Amino acid sequence: MAEDREQIEALIELMARLPGLGPRSARRAVLHLIKKRGALMGPLAETMAAVAANARECLTCGNVGTETTCEICRSVKRATGEICVVEDVADLWAMERAAVFRGRYHVLGGTLSALDAVGPEDLRIPKLEQRIEDEGVTEVILALAATVDGQTTAHYIADRLEGRGVSVTSLAQGVPVGGELDYLDDGTIGAALRARRAF
Amino acid sequence: MAEDREQIEALIELMARLPGLGPRSARRAVLHLIKKRGALMGPLAETMAAVAANARECLTCGNVGTETTCEICRSVKRATGEICVVEDVADLWAMERAAVFRGRYHVLGGTLSALDAVGPEDLRIPKLEQRIEDEGVTEVILALAATVDGQTTAHYIADRLEGRGVSVTSLAQGVPVGGELDYLDDGTIGAALRARRAF
Repeated sequence: MAEDREQIEALIELMARLPGLGPRSARRAVLHLIKKRGALMGPLAETMAAVAANARECLTCGNVGTETTCEICRSVKRATGEICVVEDVADLWAMERAAVFRGRYHVLGGTLSALDAVGPEDLRIPKLEQRIEDEGVTEVILALAATVDGQTTAHYIADRLEGRGVSVTSLAQGVPVGGELDYLDDGTIGAALRARRAF
Repeated sequence: MAEDREQIEALIELMARLPGLGPRSARRAVLHLIKKRGALMGPLAETMAAVAANARECLTCGNVGTETTCEICRSVKRATGEICVVEDVADLWAMERAAVFRGRYHVLGGTLSALDAVGPEDLRIPKLEQRIEDEGVTEVILALAATVDGQTTAHYIADRLEGRGVSVTSLAQGVPVGGELDYLDDGTIGAALRARRAF
């Protein structure tokens, strides 16, 4: 509609490529940004440019940070014998928010998926095997999603690590904290029953 | 969790302030941006900085653009006698996408709202009155939302413009195109019946 709206249109188009935003919500976000161009849009553009320039993946575990070795892999406070295998960085952050794991991580960068044609060579599995040798790892904790793809990947990794002298464990399945039986799916109830423990 | 994640955390916090994004979806968006930092994050930061620097509101109608008078107000192709009053710029864009109105706009910047303490002095109503005088306006079309606040605002403006020699109209209410009666609320069906026309 307007030559002087070209820049704004370009911004809407770029924003619409973010996950969770469509063309409509991108327009709304851009109008909000324009309204708050001093307080929000300026700082956001600046911070985004800085992160775009500085962010990189940790060469060891695949976490994101501003160094080639991430904070967790650098930390002397984190146990080196345990590696928690996660699908992506969001899962690593979720584990860190729970603050219950003091070892190190390994980000696969996805799960095996026949549909999306993701094979073992697309994930960071060889690097995991190398780390097990190099870091003297004794336990690999598979913290993968309880989905078909997640569990397929878990089984594949467990198979590949057999005979390497590491114990391979996975997160327990069961009733989530605060969960009411009435609202749980049958699969979860079944898994919780099979894994029942002495009270 | 990490000093080198401070920048990334700051970016997530800023992104979470966008309408439609919460902390969780902001994290997801930022991880997506980091993955595509060359193809998406760089251009987005650049475009956002450019818009933040250049975007301004049209002093006449309140539309956004890069000049102090927007493309529509500058255009000699747009009729000057008709002003379409809308609540915000998103509504103006919606009207423009429909491409059915060839006059000019006036963006109120909100609706009257007792709850949010928005009074007439907070909207751009005096500017509308001034434009009616200056531009020789003959028709003011109230394209406000069919909500309580929208209609209160419409009635208020209609009252204020009485005796100024402009005809004040509003968008028709009725069955939306493609709408099925069975799925319409009672209010819409009532409005459509009251406004029935010869077939």
